[in-house]
Amino acid sequence: MATEVARWSGLIKRIRLVCRNCSEEYESRLLYACPKCLGALEVKYEVSGMSKSTFESRKRSIWRYFELLPIEDPSNVVDIGSGNTPLVKADRLGEELGIRELYIKNDTLNPTFSFKDRPASVAVSKAKEFRLVAVGCASTGNLASATAAHATKAGLPCYVFMPSDVERNKILQVTQYGAEVVLVNGTYDDVNRLAHVSCDLYDVGIVNVNLRPYYVEGSKTMMLEIVEQLGWRAPEHVIVPMASGALLCALHKGLKEIEELGMVKGSTRMSGAQPEGCSPIVDAFKKGLDYVIPVERPTTLVKSLAIGMPGDGAFALKTVRQSGGVCESVSDGEALYAASLLAKTEGIFAEPGGAITVAVLKKLLEDGKVDRSEEVVCCVTGAGFKATEHISQQDVRTKLISPKIEMLNTIFAR
Amino acid sequence: MATEVARWSGLIKRIRLVCRNCSEEYESRLLYACPKCLGALEVKYEVSGMSKSTFESRKRSIWRYFELLPIEDPSNVVDIGSGNTPLVKADRLGEELGIRELYIKNDTLNPTFSFKDRPASVAVSKAKEFRLVAVGCASTGNLASATAAHATKAGLPCYVFMPSDVERNKILQVTQYGAEVVLVNGTYDDVNRLAHVSCDLYDVGIVNVNLRPYYVEGSKTMMLEIVEQLGWRAPEHVIVPMASGALLCALHKGLKEIEELGMVKGSTRMSGAQPEGCSPIVDAFKKGLDYVIPVERPTTLVKSLAIGMPGDGAFALKTVRQSGGVCESVSDGEALYAASLLAKTEGIFAEPGGAITVAVLKKLLEDGKVDRSEEVVCCVTGAGFKATEHISQQDVRTKLISPKIEMLNTIFAR
Repeated sequence: MATEVARWSGLIKRIRLVCRNCSEEYESRLLYACPKCLGALEVKYEVSGMSKSTFESRKRSIWRYFELLPIEDPSNVVDIGSGNTPLVKADRLGEELGIRELYIKNDTLNPTFSFKDRPASVAVSKAKEFRLVAVGCASTGNLASATAAHATKAGLPCYVFMPSDVERNKILQVTQYGAEVVLVNGTYDDVNRLAHVSCDLYDVGIVNVNLRPYYVEGSKTMMLEIVEQLGWRAPEHVIVPMASGALLCALHKGLKEIEELGMVKGSTRMSGAQPEGCSPIVDAFKKGLDYVIPVERPTTLVKSLAIGMPGDGAFALKTVRQSGGVCESVSDGEALYAASLLAKTEGIFAEPGGAITVAVLKKLLEDGKVDRSEEVVCCVTGAGFKATEHISQQDVRTKLISPKIEMLNTIFAR
Repeated sequence: MATEVARWSGLIKRIRLVCRNCSEEYESRLLYACPKCLGALEVKYEVSGMSKSTFESRKRSIWRYFELLPIEDPSNVVDIGSGNTPLVKADRLGEELGIRELYIKNDTLNPTFSFKDRPASVAVSKAKEFRLVAVGCASTGNLASATAAHATKAGLPCYVFMPSDVERNKILQVTQYGAEVVLVNGTYDDVNRLAHVSCDLYDVGIVNVNLRPYYVEGSKTMMLEIVEQLGWRAPEHVIVPMASGALLCALHKGLKEIEELGMVKGSTRMSGAQPEGCSPIVDAFKKGLDYVIPVERPTTLVKSLAIGMPGDGAFALKTVRQSGGVCESVSDGEALYAASLLAKTEGIFAEPGGAITVAVLKKLLEDGKVDRSEEVVCCVTGAGFKATEHISQQDVRTKLISPKIEMLNTIFAR
């Protein structure tokens, strides 16, 4: 059932699809639901002859982890430099929050300024490998630009679907890459349904629908980088924003894979963050449910996390519980405050959906659910420019002066 | 005259200041003009015991080149992950322009989304080393955020001076880091004069005035990275945006330094790009002058390059000529077109001041001043989000639909 695949630097890998529900295995192909039970599929790898230095010796992008990514022929890789983002020791923010070992994984520094470049890079590469003639996505805003940028690099037409109330700058950005931008007068879940129909009716690879098993593999590179940046050590605790829940699951999968390869030891608590106006996974966690009750109308301004029907919700719940983590939500105000705090202590300008992990950490510390001596990595997933309408005029304080020397007294003499 | 400095990994370096005009040498201290002749000072290094692998083994930021940066005590380093940006092989854009070997150094992926994080990181570190109590800068917009972000990480108050007509998003961004933002009702040259007076009258380190010799050292890391990313090989031709001209000079200085260390061979043509509405260096180049005639009122919308009185203009001219490069200017329309082309071919969203190198390359190819078989690196220095007012409504084309399946025909059936 396995396809023998790429030989790169003399290494061999085999990939196949496995049903997360019934464990049936399939050859790698354009398939996203198990034909037997309709369960979600995920990619499994058989790799050999690989060491940490294999990865370390390669160029700095997500593609240094080629053997753990589901592309068979390296010539199909679409690489615009995604990944390779800084892991910043956040001593100033840590002091502010009262925690000793805090890191920020600054994924605002991806080519289109969000972590979505990781999965988009893999999905568009796979679309090329499957010889698809067009790609697209359902997006809350960030995936749109990530898909469009990689599609244009691959020379493929791109169709992106977003809710019409998405932030203005996200719309502006995606149009620059030359994509066909479709704004849907509805929620993200409406958008997602249209995208599902699109790949059933038209010959298009929707990166987070029919390419989804491949797509999510890209996200796990965030964890591979964190571990490598810590000197091949698993962090004690990672806090991740949750929309569909896929990112959290992917990070955990990545960690397990390199653990199985003997590259890292130890376990990591995985915790998830959502905004109160759309927190179906957190609600299920707190109620002790192992399934998620959809939120019909998200009411948060944290648009990038406004997915009422999270596709990977149940898996995220399971992962969080098994790892000893927690799920927590915060108000929009707390997310905005965290974004401001992150900029003012660490010089990192993030959108509220990215900084929400900092807000959740603050709450967990206050509630005693994270110990002040615990080592925590907060994943910050999108840049502040993407959501500038949430920055209040009060925060944009400036002083206007005429170009005269005596005016300097009004600046420095206070 | 030399100060013995940092021992890091058992290596030794000595740094001193040398007058670019009369060659007099000084100990490293807070000095930016030669006390004898008022010439500009630059940092010279004496290093030993270093190899390529010394650099390669270190973490990924500009600080991997510690021995070639003017900080004595590593504990003074203020690092938020600046540098380590992708060098993208730009085959799609290259095909469009008709050139075989084209690379984009994508410096939009710095912590505050412009290359200015490189010099700001070094200057704020040096301010810490000099025990200064506050920092600031004169800025056309990008340096403001870079200085503010590094200052807040260092725990230092920050005063930034910008012309009041700078792009709105640049103002918004810098306020987020908690800096004191002073908008000056005048040109950049007015702003620069105020900044000069500030460090004479007040106890503040203005990164591009009294810290300037140290500041410019940060910029050269862009060239060190390009060379390392090419496998320790000097590129044939690099095109750089010019405002003060300092970036171009710094890249050339970096190349010479690693050449002297025997890490790289061969020469690189250095070319400079300016907008027609403010092109004093280009004008001097074309007239065969070895000095620059200031532009009193810049009339370009490429604000980040609107410096009428370029401090390093004469040095940039000399560097370009000695290296066999050229200086060229383009219209605002050509710069905007290049930004659009870069997004639509390579998925890189740059501001016009960053994409101007692509516009100049296009012109040089058309004029036969660059050969189509020449290897060229275009430095792209700032992100598109920084200057969104230049994106015309015509370029933000979207389609609004209701969430109904039959609407898909209007999308895909064209």
